[in-house]
Amino acid sequence: MKFNEQSDYKLEEKIRREKIALLPIGAVESHGDHLPLGTDSILAERLAAKVVERVGGMVLPTLHYTYVWSLGRRLGTIGISNDLLRETIKEIGLEVKRNGFKIFVIINAHLGNLSAIKEAVRAIYDDEMKIYYFSYPGADKALSEVMESGKLYGDFFHAEEIETSYMLYLAEEYVDMSKAIAGSPEVPAEISYTPIRWDEFSETSVMGDATKATREKGRYVIDSVVEYIAEILKRHL
Amino acid sequence: MKFNEQSDYKLEEKIRREKIALLPIGAVESHGDHLPLGTDSILAERLAAKVVERVGGMVLPTLHYTYVWSLGRRLGTIGISNDLLRETIKEIGLEVKRNGFKIFVIINAHLGNLSAIKEAVRAIYDDEMKIYYFSYPGADKALSEVMESGKLYGDFFHAEEIETSYMLYLAEEYVDMSKAIAGSPEVPAEISYTPIRWDEFSETSVMGDATKATREKGRYVIDSVVEYIAEILKRHL
Amino acid sequence: MKFNEQSDYKLEEKIRREKIALLPIGAVESHGDHLPLGTDSILAERLAAKVVERVGGMVLPTLHYTYVWSLGRRLGTIGISNDLLRETIKEIGLEVKRNGFKIFVIINAHLGNLSAIKEAVRAIYDDEMKIYYFSYPGADKALSEVMESGKLYGDFFHAEEIETSYMLYLAEEYVDMSKAIAGSPEVPAEISYTPIRWDEFSETSVMGDATKATREKGRYVIDSVVEYIAEILKRHL
Amino acid sequence: MKFNEQSDYKLEEKIRREKIALLPIGAVESHGDHLPLGTDSILAERLAAKVVERVGGMVLPTLHYTYVWSLGRRLGTIGISNDLLRETIKEIGLEVKRNGFKIFVIINAHLGNLSAIKEAVRAIYDDEMKIYYFSYPGADKALSEVMESGKLYGDFFHAEEIETSYMLYLAEEYVDMSKAIAGSPEVPAEISYTPIRWDEFSETSVMGDATKATREKGRYVIDSVVEYIAEILKRHL
Amino acid sequence: MKFNEQSDYKLEEKIRREKIALLPIGAVESHGDHLPLGTDSILAERLAAKVVERVGGMVLPTLHYTYVWSLGRRLGTIGISNDLLRETIKEIGLEVKRNGFKIFVIINAHLGNLSAIKEAVRAIYDDEMKIYYFSYPGADKALSEVMESGKLYGDFFHAEEIETSYMLYLAEEYVDMSKAIAGSPEVPAEISYTPIRWDEFSETSVMGDATKATREKGRYVIDSVVEYIAEILKRHL
Amino acid sequence: MKFNEQSDYKLEEKIRREKIALLPIGAVESHGDHLPLGTDSILAERLAAKVVERVGGMVLPTLHYTYVWSLGRRLGTIGISNDLLRETIKEIGLEVKRNGFKIFVIINAHLGNLSAIKEAVRAIYDDEMKIYYFSYPGADKALSEVMESGKLYGDFFHAEEIETSYMLYLAEEYVDMSKAIAGSPEVPAEISYTPIRWDEFSETSVMGDATKATREKGRYVIDSVVEYIAEILKRHL
Repeated sequence: MKFNEQSDYKLEEKIRREKIALLPIGAVESHGDHLPLGTDSILAERLAAKVVERVGGMVLPTLHYTYVWSLGRRLGTIGISNDLLRETIKEIGLEVKRNGFKIFVIINAHLGNLSAIKEAVRAIYDDEMKIYYFSYPGADKALSEVMESGKLYGDFFHAEEIETSYMLYLAEEYVDMSKAIAGSPEVPAEISYTPIRWDEFSETSVMGDATKATREKGRYVIDSVVEYIAEILKRHL
Repeated sequence: MKFNEQSDYKLEEKIRREKIALLPIGAVESHGDHLPLGTDSILAERLAAKVVERVGGMVLPTLHYTYVWSLGRRLGTIGISNDLLRETIKEIGLEVKRNGFKIFVIINAHLGNLSAIKEAVRAIYDDEMKIYYFSYPGADKALSEVMESGKLYGDFFHAEEIETSYMLYLAEEYVDMSKAIAGSPEVPAEISYTPIRWDEFSETSVMGDATKATREKGRYVIDSVVEYIAEILKRHL
Repeated sequence: MKFNEQSDYKLEEKIRREKIALLPIGAVESHGDHLPLGTDSILAERLAAKVVERVGGMVLPTLHYTYVWSLGRRLGTIGISNDLLRETIKEIGLEVKRNGFKIFVIINAHLGNLSAIKEAVRAIYDDEMKIYYFSYPGADKALSEVMESGKLYGDFFHAEEIETSYMLYLAEEYVDMSKAIAGSPEVPAEISYTPIRWDEFSETSVMGDATKATREKGRYVIDSVVEYIAEILKRHL
Repeated sequence: MKFNEQSDYKLEEKIRREKIALLPIGAVESHGDHLPLGTDSILAERLAAKVVERVGGMVLPTLHYTYVWSLGRRLGTIGISNDLLRETIKEIGLEVKRNGFKIFVIINAHLGNLSAIKEAVRAIYDDEMKIYYFSYPGADKALSEVMESGKLYGDFFHAEEIETSYMLYLAEEYVDMSKAIAGSPEVPAEISYTPIRWDEFSETSVMGDATKATREKGRYVIDSVVEYIAEILKRHL
Repeated sequence: MKFNEQSDYKLEEKIRREKIALLPIGAVESHGDHLPLGTDSILAERLAAKVVERVGGMVLPTLHYTYVWSLGRRLGTIGISNDLLRETIKEIGLEVKRNGFKIFVIINAHLGNLSAIKEAVRAIYDDEMKIYYFSYPGADKALSEVMESGKLYGDFFHAEEIETSYMLYLAEEYVDMSKAIAGSPEVPAEISYTPIRWDEFSETSVMGDATKATREKGRYVIDSVVEYIAEILKRHL
Repeated sequence: MKFNEQSDYKLEEKIRREKIALLPIGAVESHGDHLPLGTDSILAERLAAKVVERVGGMVLPTLHYTYVWSLGRRLGTIGISNDLLRETIKEIGLEVKRNGFKIFVIINAHLGNLSAIKEAVRAIYDDEMKIYYFSYPGADKALSEVMESGKLYGDFFHAEEIETSYMLYLAEEYVDMSKAIAGSPEVPAEISYTPIRWDEFSETSVMGDATKATREKGRYVIDSVVEYIAEILKRHL
């Protein structure tokens, strides 16, 4: 159920019944030749829809313009500052509360948004409205079972086996596997300790082996993520 | 051509060819029982698409969360502050320029956004990128020919004959004419001189006679708006 | 009755009796060779004084430094940013309320200030103090009767027949009609859709035919504006 | 020569000739029963005029709304925050420079404005425009010769012998000596080390013996202040 | 070599020779009955000193006041907002660059500071000065070898076996092991997805078994952290 | 008693007993060849310790990074902006109140911090917590008795006879009198009326005759300052 497609008609009743407002947060960001710039937005939207299938709720319009630093100088990226993102989420959250929702769920598909999200929800949390922010929670176990190419570095994944598999499952129509490559940038070991933009060490935005991606892998991981989220939310329904 | 559906593949070439980036700016806002909360976003998106049909260009993802003051306390509205909106537009505009677009076109469907838009574009305008912001330009003449119910007050129109006609033409699937009413709030004469929220004088968000709306009227006005915009943009192509 | 000329003596009593605080908002801005840079401030002050003659009230000191964008690069203009102006009005308004006034009336003579004013009064309005902001309200009818040269473009008027007539009526001592010219800049049609500073299309700051101005025209329009404002305010006295 | 009374006519020439822009900064602030609320604004304006008599220059419109903390809760005061004041002065200073003035002189008559002024001028100072800020410089010696009542505490003086004498000399028409009192508040010794508003220890805003004020004392001190300022400015002319 | 203990004497020469400026960032935060409130500041300082022993450099004064959210409501904590912390680090970094240092190393001992640090260094990084931020890098392997009690949850450790061991090694004089307890709060599984302050689920601030701490464990882990940092920095010397 | 060395153990009791939290505020700033860059921080800390010897209280960690404008371009200085300093003090003060202290005492040793401190304490003062800010109060009389070299200009003193004497008394181990010089910069008379950085008129940062400094002078002045502060604080104990 999409919030923006509702009218005023019985709106209060619907909000009371659905309880949950889900905010998909994506990005406009370079994702290689095989994935669209809107990959993160699309994934967040479709993941939110899957969660709603399981536990109900109303999906808010997607927040497309977010904080992109690592690929912030590459063509195709359209980002905003971290502060603007944080304040926007904060104000949306307060409006969600004003509308009477009992649970505010952020479905985030772009890791770069995480610190803005965390600060935003800390600023608005209180006893009245429960707040969750999910960036593919519970994916680790499923990923370790199906992933073939190995993560390139730390927690980040981008336009490679994982994310491409997610897209193949959730939004195959936007994927052009004929252009998928096995990106293998040498991620500098010190990227955890010093600011390095990805364009400093990689020609493309594909941070891993996208050719290994399959719809099946995507389905397996995403379904467990949805399950994971559903379990958490069901406690409050 | 939607920007978010493009990949990195030949992106530079496409941007150079299309020249124009269009940013639809809408709102999440109460629009009565017959129109969806996302009315302004939907209209901005579809209007942008029509402009692209005429002059080309790439449509950026829609800015859904905007500044809603007049109906800012009503259920269904999810707004952000004027300052946040202005800064967001400003930063998006700078990114559009960095991506190499020659013309930045804002297609705005919510009048409340106008002052934020105006300040934003003033802040970023220079000789490198041409900027336009359109809020149904050139509609007045066409409106005077087809509109039956008369504007309630000044420049604003909301969920009444005009906007409902626009929706019937551009997004009929979201309109439920069976719930359309002839709203006739007594708009206080002094609304131009003193801050008054619309909920202070109107029970519903329908600011006029929505029952008079027809797809034909919408088509007539919107087509002339599209024509008007296309004429302006074509000078730079 | 000027606020700044009062002492503490019986001040509370006077405020209670007068009820209204009027804030003239002008500008320091290029106005051609025949009008002074302080034209807008002078007009706002004298208009406020005329309103007080009709309905009483205390006139606050004039806000001279305001937001000038269109003529912001021309010699003679001394402007501040829109945000600063808005915050200043907001804080003044709160102080006016703290002093016990029941009505806060902004008399604005510079159109560029309008969006700052609107945001400011929205931020402070509540049930305790009534707020009005007037930029020559009700002038349109009178203007249509007396004006000979026609408006150049849209709503704006600047240093031409209208404003010069106002000055001739309200502050003739500052006008040098021997230097008045018939300015006829080609205002670009797209000025409503794209940011254009006036110096881009006009050599002088006279945006119309100042030679057509007469004291009589000014008197006719200003008197109806004063009448209009007085009618509104009298309802609350 | 008042800047706001000039027109565009030969403005560039006048600015080049006069070199100096003087900005009077006052306050809207309670000053007892015998002095007007605008005392500081009036003093700053008239002092500026006297300086211009000596060294030329153009007087900008007065900044009336400033930072009042010590008497910030008293009736009659209309203040703005320190930050707003500082930013306003900063922006005015930059505009003064843009207009081509070679010296920017702030004539300040309200001590509470000093830290905002200091920060503002630090932010804009460079090699192009010389900046001065004067708060009755060089008054000390003259004061020690004529003052009878003794300063109440530290550097501040307010609506007492000194300021009332200034007003008697510069703006006698606004003074009502019949209402002057010998205020003798017990200024807490610790006021230099802890925030204390004056209303915490004084019933009136008269911080000393206003009855001792004479026009002659005012003339003596103000003339030496003007002399002092003129000497400094003449070095650059 | 402590920066604050140097004088102007041969300072330029010393900076050129030492190349590195190290900024210890700690916290003022509740750490149980056995560890001091300044634990994080002390650890950051002593760790920085150990790094200097290995690779040289000058240690800047410690940043004590930082961002504490999780234990932000507990007695003993004195925190500042995330934004203030970020801006402070940013401005310090720019000053470090102005002073001519070639490497700016942040030694951080409080995880809550990480997102502010990351944003700050992103804002100032460029080609002139290399920037590193270290929060016990490379500790994981050593920890897995010596730690007995197991981490309570995710990445965080606080006043338990790990941190207490660090203190026993680096600052034994501040530890009172007789008051160490085996804290075993039930950390809510959803703490990664929803804002929860630690005082909501734990009576004490000891987030694990502090009784298991030994000086030897601390030495083993800290020494490998120092080694790890030294290896990275030596590449630039 | 240092706050940062306390643990949670009986912390509430200690705070209730000690009542006073003292915040030393210093600077990182060039102080000539004979005094360390941390002179102001060291002085503030040691002065705070002396006050605690007299009246009890808990000393908070030192605020090292503060606002340095006059020597802000010199090597050795690491400053932050005035706004950041003010906000940091404000937030620390609010945390001190939250911790239950009854008196918040700022011991400041850098005059440049004064306006930030003053604004900060004004923003947080209320009836619950008493706030004091001391910058060597009551030193004037003692100084006039012992000082030989005469103040260079107005209120400021820096790395000369006074400050060096303070250091000789409070932190002799950091002073190298063999490098002390008799600085005698020509302080421009107009420094009180126009922004001038000290590096514009002085080769060194020694603003007076440091060779005249003695431990005895420092002891005499500092002891009377401590006495002065103790007298004020004892009234509230």
